[in-house]
Amino acid sequence: MPKEYLKDLLIPSESKIVLLVMDGLGGLPMEADGKTELETAKTPNMDKLAAEGTLGQTIPIRPGITPGSGPAHLALFGYDPIAYDVGRGALEATGAGMDFQPGDVAVRGNFCTVDENGLITDRRAGRIPSEESIHVVEKLAKVSIPGVETKVKLVKEYRFAVVMRGEGLHGEIDDTDPQRTGVAPLPAVATDPNSEKTAELFNQWIAKAREAIADEPKANCLTLRGFASDPGLPKYKDVYGLRAACVAVYPMYRGVSNLVGMDVQSFAGEYPADEFKAVANAWDDYDFFFVHIKKTDSMGEDGNFDGKVHIIESVDEALPALMDLNPDVVIITGDHSTPAKMRSHSWHPVPFLIWSSQYSMPDTQTHFGERACAQGGLGTIPATDTMSLALAHAGRLQKYGA
Amino acid sequence: MPKEYLKDLLIPSESKIVLLVMDGLGGLPMEADGKTELETAKTPNMDKLAAEGTLGQTIPIRPGITPGSGPAHLALFGYDPIAYDVGRGALEATGAGMDFQPGDVAVRGNFCTVDENGLITDRRAGRIPSEESIHVVEKLAKVSIPGVETKVKLVKEYRFAVVMRGEGLHGEIDDTDPQRTGVAPLPAVATDPNSEKTAELFNQWIAKAREAIADEPKANCLTLRGFASDPGLPKYKDVYGLRAACVAVYPMYRGVSNLVGMDVQSFAGEYPADEFKAVANAWDDYDFFFVHIKKTDSMGEDGNFDGKVHIIESVDEALPALMDLNPDVVIITGDHSTPAKMRSHSWHPVPFLIWSSQYSMPDTQTHFGERACAQGGLGTIPATDTMSLALAHAGRLQKYGA
Repeated sequence: MPKEYLKDLLIPSESKIVLLVMDGLGGLPMEADGKTELETAKTPNMDKLAAEGTLGQTIPIRPGITPGSGPAHLALFGYDPIAYDVGRGALEATGAGMDFQPGDVAVRGNFCTVDENGLITDRRAGRIPSEESIHVVEKLAKVSIPGVETKVKLVKEYRFAVVMRGEGLHGEIDDTDPQRTGVAPLPAVATDPNSEKTAELFNQWIAKAREAIADEPKANCLTLRGFASDPGLPKYKDVYGLRAACVAVYPMYRGVSNLVGMDVQSFAGEYPADEFKAVANAWDDYDFFFVHIKKTDSMGEDGNFDGKVHIIESVDEALPALMDLNPDVVIITGDHSTPAKMRSHSWHPVPFLIWSSQYSMPDTQTHFGERACAQGGLGTIPATDTMSLALAHAGRLQKYGA
Repeated sequence: MPKEYLKDLLIPSESKIVLLVMDGLGGLPMEADGKTELETAKTPNMDKLAAEGTLGQTIPIRPGITPGSGPAHLALFGYDPIAYDVGRGALEATGAGMDFQPGDVAVRGNFCTVDENGLITDRRAGRIPSEESIHVVEKLAKVSIPGVETKVKLVKEYRFAVVMRGEGLHGEIDDTDPQRTGVAPLPAVATDPNSEKTAELFNQWIAKAREAIADEPKANCLTLRGFASDPGLPKYKDVYGLRAACVAVYPMYRGVSNLVGMDVQSFAGEYPADEFKAVANAWDDYDFFFVHIKKTDSMGEDGNFDGKVHIIESVDEALPALMDLNPDVVIITGDHSTPAKMRSHSWHPVPFLIWSSQYSMPDTQTHFGERACAQGGLGTIPATDTMSLALAHAGRLQKYGA
């Protein structure tokens, strides 16, 4: 249970909390004397919230640790990712909208291409497009082995997810992806005796699945990565007393939200304005809204400084629609840093802004940016304290002790 | 044991430390662009210490958690209040100066008024004044039941404390206060089997006590809250090597100080100058002085911004008398924030000032206030690190490792 001490302090409230996560928000200047992406972006709406609210910076996992997206989001949601190890398969399967329950084992699949000797020639099956791979996934979906139920779903292009359901399954199994070409896929091997039966079942499934797709021109084989059981994470309703909604475009983020008990919202479009509209549509039914913006991270990964600036500005432009809903608390932050300069996630602290309609302590900062946040009134805090601060500013926590 | 690593580092010293706690010191601006209570107050003497010393801000319990006074003080004294759960009854009894020892069970009592059917009509017995209730407490003090010893002492007005001493007593017992009128007081019910005998003994005592005061016009019944055993906290002398004195007007703070082994000082008056005089009187006999100013908190709770400003100024005005004693280390802080704007305790970080006659690292700040503290040289630290910093600045800790 994250932050065990919170549970006894929760008090009912009508207040609404928005957690707006711009993935990979934190950046670096391209030149030593330059500005970061966020510092460069014109963000008058966020700056207003920065002036009225309080800034700070978060450490996603531990100082110096560069987080993956899954652990970084778990941290924002209040679950120490060092304590809660959630397998990538679990994130992928739930993210793809699959029914994934305690006792199931999920895994990510990649289509690959093998030659006549069974050696991998392309680890991503020529980046086969979704329009083609959907038919290959249909073949996999028909594969069945005795004693367990298996489901398969396309994620995107060469990626799919598999969920196995049955008695006594455990997910402590090594990846079958050898991570290079010129070799054969590995068999599924258990790393713990209690997972040996499950590994054997997956090997049976792999054998039949390979037969089923052997004639495919590109996707004639597969590898499996990130075997995982349901981590059994405590749910938002129980931990925080919040009816929580997830508004995210990308499957992974829907997945991790779902694992903590958020209701994933369906909506059309992929722009910030579309996402805020989805928040508006669900406004009356929930207390907490997690809104995820993916493209800040994608632009950072692409080394596209200006593109990342533009995405941040487009979020700022759409922000008034969110504020028109009269939220009680708005948090704007990232899950980690993805500086365009590094073209990758990084360990740098993440800008954090908390604004409350009633209880904000304004600090000396008036712009939302990395260096302003480092000087902010909250100081440098673990990302796992985000939810405690959100609940406090929303009037949802009573006093600890008399 | 708090901060286990300190014990082996302690070195003897003649140095004197003063921990001056203005209860609920932290505040908020009433208007978005305004100043806080502390920022508004004219505090030339504290500002001088701020300029010479180092500022910072503390998190009393955890980010977002609003502390009660007991846990907040434990934290300042170096005991993580999440790890050390001290019952309110223990604080009240020791605060009232009762002899409370390991194995005893203490509880807070409230006089109430019941009608002819035994239903509560006033939970505070018409806020009966102490001059009247002292006589009712005398009746309670004469009540005895077989096998245990009970003592009763008036706290104030309708409040008193009871201590029961005997074999095998345990304090895991629910309150008998139903928290509303129109119903009868509840019986004492154990929440753990090991406390069942104690609950039964308290029920016997309650029955006899009610008989003894049944004829009273207002205080004709009672409720009990916060049953507690002695938490067995390690003492200041053992943990820090300090002979510690408590100078406080209010019982609760005397109580919590006593539980950590401080000697509670008796003195006349209730103004800051009176308290500093009490420090002066005890100066030669102690190494550490905890001085508690209550009214900053009371004014905050009353929503009296100007009143809180005035109390802070009165402390500042009296401060030279304290500095004339030539302390080696002075810490000025609060136990938590009590913004007049909120009329309650809050979770906001607490201003912290440490001044040392020899070892201060002056930061860039020259005024004592929330926003200066957020920019201070100590950064944002847990309140539980207060004592380590005090000892270090007092030259009372040797090097860790070679």
